[in-house]
Amino acid sequence: MRQVVMYGPGDVRVEDREDPRIMEPTDAIIRLSATCICGSDLWPYQSMPFKEQGRRMGHEFIGIVEEVGSEVSGFERGDLVVAPFVWADNTCDFCREGLHTSCRHGRGWGAPGLDAGQGEVVRVPLAQGTLVKLPVAPDSALMPSLLTLSDVMGTGHHAAVVARVARGYRVAVVGDGAVGLCGVIAAKRLGAEQIVIMGRHEDRVALARDFGATDVVSERGEEAVARVHELTDGYGVDAVLECVGLDESMETAIGIARPGGAVGRVGVPQHEALPAARPSFYGNITIGGGPAPVRAYIDDLLPDVLEGRIEPGRVFDRTVDLGGVPDGYRAMNDRESIKVLVRP
Amino acid sequence: MRQVVMYGPGDVRVEDREDPRIMEPTDAIIRLSATCICGSDLWPYQSMPFKEQGRRMGHEFIGIVEEVGSEVSGFERGDLVVAPFVWADNTCDFCREGLHTSCRHGRGWGAPGLDAGQGEVVRVPLAQGTLVKLPVAPDSALMPSLLTLSDVMGTGHHAAVVARVARGYRVAVVGDGAVGLCGVIAAKRLGAEQIVIMGRHEDRVALARDFGATDVVSERGEEAVARVHELTDGYGVDAVLECVGLDESMETAIGIARPGGAVGRVGVPQHEALPAARPSFYGNITIGGGPAPVRAYIDDLLPDVLEGRIEPGRVFDRTVDLGGVPDGYRAMNDRESIKVLVRP
Repeated sequence: MRQVVMYGPGDVRVEDREDPRIMEPTDAIIRLSATCICGSDLWPYQSMPFKEQGRRMGHEFIGIVEEVGSEVSGFERGDLVVAPFVWADNTCDFCREGLHTSCRHGRGWGAPGLDAGQGEVVRVPLAQGTLVKLPVAPDSALMPSLLTLSDVMGTGHHAAVVARVARGYRVAVVGDGAVGLCGVIAAKRLGAEQIVIMGRHEDRVALARDFGATDVVSERGEEAVARVHELTDGYGVDAVLECVGLDESMETAIGIARPGGAVGRVGVPQHEALPAARPSFYGNITIGGGPAPVRAYIDDLLPDVLEGRIEPGRVFDRTVDLGGVPDGYRAMNDRESIKVLVRP
Repeated sequence: MRQVVMYGPGDVRVEDREDPRIMEPTDAIIRLSATCICGSDLWPYQSMPFKEQGRRMGHEFIGIVEEVGSEVSGFERGDLVVAPFVWADNTCDFCREGLHTSCRHGRGWGAPGLDAGQGEVVRVPLAQGTLVKLPVAPDSALMPSLLTLSDVMGTGHHAAVVARVARGYRVAVVGDGAVGLCGVIAAKRLGAEQIVIMGRHEDRVALARDFGATDVVSERGEEAVARVHELTDGYGVDAVLECVGLDESMETAIGIARPGGAVGRVGVPQHEALPAARPSFYGNITIGGGPAPVRAYIDDLLPDVLEGRIEPGRVFDRTVDLGGVPDGYRAMNDRESIKVLVRP
């Protein structure tokens, strides 16, 4: 089978690897129907140290069950399933409280000895806890939106949940990438009255407006903070979704939160320390978030996708086959594309 | 009247100042019965730049109403009252949601043109919103505990509330100062099952045990983190009360929080940035807190003090008159005293 492997900055290759097989009775083997490139894949694409054996890429996918281990029930050959970006047992204490990203037995895709999502076939450990069956055919027009349930839609939703978005709230979304755009959908879905998207790419902010953003702030830094205060009667917003992970974006996020407000951060932090320790303290601003427990959110979000109430799949603006993945990385890195869907 | 004024590190003087008078119809004049020195006063005591006109000190006090402005109702001459460490209108949107420290019209004591709490008489702006009547006589044995409602008890409680302490929780309190000790009381009061006090002063941890601490960790840094994990089945605690404000203490706080846990910080931050941005992210640890809206908490805590269910006044281990205040600063700074009560 073919698998995408990254060796260093800009060095993405599609290689032949041995087909995975059932190794544990809790495994399943999935042949992928749709996968994609994640904004977080761009961090190693820009800066990973060269790695001789390479790193298998991909952590978002939908596929068809080919085989299940003897201890997997509820799934059978031919089922269409979506996998969250981490696998989890769905039974441990952390999973029971909805924090599947801290599952006592789960891990991320692509770790040594494990398959990853940008390929043709994947061995899914703890398959019964990890996978969720999809009641559609693999050629459904809903596939792009369903695929976002494995990461970006759940991640945008996590930012909104952690930022405590509620009916009537004023919300700002820092970052106009796929996660930020899904954050707009999530904020709207949770009842936000005002949604400020902070971004400067025309195509993206246009999509954000379609998703429910009421205001656009294209300034950065202190100017952006001033602009958001203007838009909120000098008040700042109740909830900020930080979907970037850089020092500057976090500083902006804290700067635009009102006293007593909350920042939900889902951008993988590229800094060692969170800026603005004093302003966030004096304003009693709460900062939370992290990797989204998307498995926990699929139950909530899936009906809205199936019934067409939300269309997060619109963040995909390019589709490639596996051979097109290296150029897909380049296109996303050059901001030519918001998010690339891959049909293996 | 006499007033404590700080001019620079270690330079605390008691000076004669003009008696305050009603300036606004919303003012009240209070003659102080009891006030105290705060742990946060030690930051300027150690490091404030020399200031020619000095800085009036003190922000925690109980006193007797001498006079009220024409727009103050519900208070009269002779009432015993407690004042929170910031004054507030108790009517603006922030006050209404319980965030009096962000009141649109309030401020802290001792700012230019304003009186402060380590003195004989204070002009209280927005007196009706700020003051709370106490149903005891000024010679009540409850005075020390009632005085803590103006800051340390409410601040420890804020840390516990922000850290989401609930029945059955495992809690750690970082810092064995007066606020940390009140944090132990607050955690116990909110139903914590295990309370780990992190400190190394024998007298303080003994008091913490009296207040309900179940475990003591005197190690620091990585050793402290390892010790708390040992005490919690490798799990970490559900809630951390960060009552110090240093880089190291915050790093410890994040290190001992379980995935999905929360840190309530009330130690005035001495750092520009919050450490451990990545560990707190990967663990989905929420960091909140700031200056405690103690005015909002007095209604909750006062009955417990009046009925003797909590005894936060035990954090005072020394009493001085105004002339004894400079030595009181020294004693607290040298860790000879936990907290100094002042009878002006």
